[in-house]
Amino acid sequence: MRKIVLTAMAALLVVPAQAQDAAPVLSPGEIAAAAPADDWIAIAASDLLVMDLAPDARGSARRVVIQLMPAPFSQGWIGNIRKLVGAHWWDGTSVNRVQDNYVAQWGDATEKKALPPGLAAVPEREYVVSGSARAQPAASDKAVIRLPKDGAVPATGKGGGLAGASMSDAYAPNVAFESGWPIGSSAGRASRWPLHCYAAVGVGRNMSPDTGSGAELYAVIGHAPRHLDRNIAVVGRIISGIEHLSSLPRGTKALGFYKDAAERVTIRSIRIASDLSMPEQPKFEYLSTESDSFARYVDARRNRRDPFFIVPAGGADICNIPVPVRPVGAK
Amino acid sequence: MRKIVLTAMAALLVVPAQAQDAAPVLSPGEIAAAAPADDWIAIAASDLLVMDLAPDARGSARRVVIQLMPAPFSQGWIGNIRKLVGAHWWDGTSVNRVQDNYVAQWGDATEKKALPPGLAAVPEREYVVSGSARAQPAASDKAVIRLPKDGAVPATGKGGGLAGASMSDAYAPNVAFESGWPIGSSAGRASRWPLHCYAAVGVGRNMSPDTGSGAELYAVIGHAPRHLDRNIAVVGRIISGIEHLSSLPRGTKALGFYKDAAERVTIRSIRIASDLSMPEQPKFEYLSTESDSFARYVDARRNRRDPFFIVPAGGADICNIPVPVRPVGAK
Repeated sequence: MRKIVLTAMAALLVVPAQAQDAAPVLSPGEIAAAAPADDWIAIAASDLLVMDLAPDARGSARRVVIQLMPAPFSQGWIGNIRKLVGAHWWDGTSVNRVQDNYVAQWGDATEKKALPPGLAAVPEREYVVSGSARAQPAASDKAVIRLPKDGAVPATGKGGGLAGASMSDAYAPNVAFESGWPIGSSAGRASRWPLHCYAAVGVGRNMSPDTGSGAELYAVIGHAPRHLDRNIAVVGRIISGIEHLSSLPRGTKALGFYKDAAERVTIRSIRIASDLSMPEQPKFEYLSTESDSFARYVDARRNRRDPFFIVPAGGADICNIPVPVRPVGAK
Repeated sequence: MRKIVLTAMAALLVVPAQAQDAAPVLSPGEIAAAAPADDWIAIAASDLLVMDLAPDARGSARRVVIQLMPAPFSQGWIGNIRKLVGAHWWDGTSVNRVQDNYVAQWGDATEKKALPPGLAAVPEREYVVSGSARAQPAASDKAVIRLPKDGAVPATGKGGGLAGASMSDAYAPNVAFESGWPIGSSAGRASRWPLHCYAAVGVGRNMSPDTGSGAELYAVIGHAPRHLDRNIAVVGRIISGIEHLSSLPRGTKALGFYKDAAERVTIRSIRIASDLSMPEQPKFEYLSTESDSFARYVDARRNRRDPFFIVPAGGADICNIPVPVRPVGAK
């Protein structure tokens, strides 16, 4: 796997003779990188949480950036999270739990810190969205990409929307990309819900019918724990800096909680990016899940034809098709 | 999620009234822990690799234990790995690459260390096994568990084998557990292959038709990269100590390679457990994938009914059904 860096040259050696004149076969990452600027959609600063952890042992800064889910998903908890940020509630709290192949969790380890007034008690029914209200599209990202069963490139286009049945999924009758997010739905799409993929951020809770206030959050740092879908609220995803959580030492108490308070990593602050000064604001964009580029990217994730691969799978788990996100200005 | 530790008490509160007299609803982990001793199968010391990394910054030992795949899978590379271990080839090499949500990789960073004589050049056709030869069962673990589509508990039994169609999978026509391992197969099961689930250990390689000698190995430390199935050899899985790899700092060069040699973690030694003195040998056992206990465990992974959960999924990704493994004598 080391020599995969030699892709460009090696491609000449392994592409079958009859394809020599064709365009080089691009990897999914290369397809995203080659997407025209119009296919990238800026993420509003008001939808970004900026979590600054205490510096690491060598004094390096540790910044984690979270993109919040768009309406109509999980808005009750997200409203609470905005209030908690406004009250600077997380400042001085910590990452208290890191369980291998599962989650890193943060909040008030003492469980005694008073919550700010005005938080909603969000009911379980808000784990799913009923009816046909779509996620609020950013800019031109208005359609839903369903994943085809047969491995064919979906027929897509800016004006078009997509044909094709939903792809094979073990947890939901249908899965699809909607305004940049992986979403599950019931047969007939009467209800829809966000998915626990890698980097998803969710709301810790007590036993049902409690759904959590949003003060206790976790990020998925292992194989997608999709059994949590519809059982815990997903409120966003980490789009930068997840390694500051995923590479933390695992806790040795039950469920990966840290045994000693000294093991916890302090959270210096969590802010909404739009509350930072302009130069401090992180700026990210995602590849429109309505774009032709994304359709090609999905197809390439389902059928790896770049030179390293021998057998294309003909399908992919939706959580193994991460939506490309990059800093604005990156290439 | 913090209060999930209160499961036993809370169960009384949330089990519906008509079920009050029934046995308590167990979590998958509780089902495995309650399995009779006969359902656990000892792993032969000759099938365990013991990798000792240099101690961490605080002087704590870091031991990683890998279970090698049983025949007929990947035996060409595993034969090479046994020769490399016999030559103490990895002693003094290092972990050179840690890519977030993907792999940790180890071997000779210089790429100049001579390989021992007698290693086989294993052909690509050995990525799959043709015909009906089953994985060599350990002890009584003789059957194959296929995952049913409908969420019903598979009808199973020591003497029986299992009914039920294979479960929904995005990458393989069929997936099933075979002698303790998750295995994919073609329609009609004419060919079968091991899966890249979390903790799987694979063989790094150069461009096709090279398949790698086995000297360069990696472990999956993120969401299952199932697109690698049939494209790279899977030779085993980490059954203990994966946190010593998954929590390492991510490399900052392309593909997660470390930029500075000082970032690499030295491998003190890799040995076959049976070559260690008896008191030094780690002893592990796995839950027979033929057992009734495993069938109940699978069902519970597919339909979480323990008190924390509200909506059972009715299915599960095979890589989200890890085969229970524990130290011998643990409960």
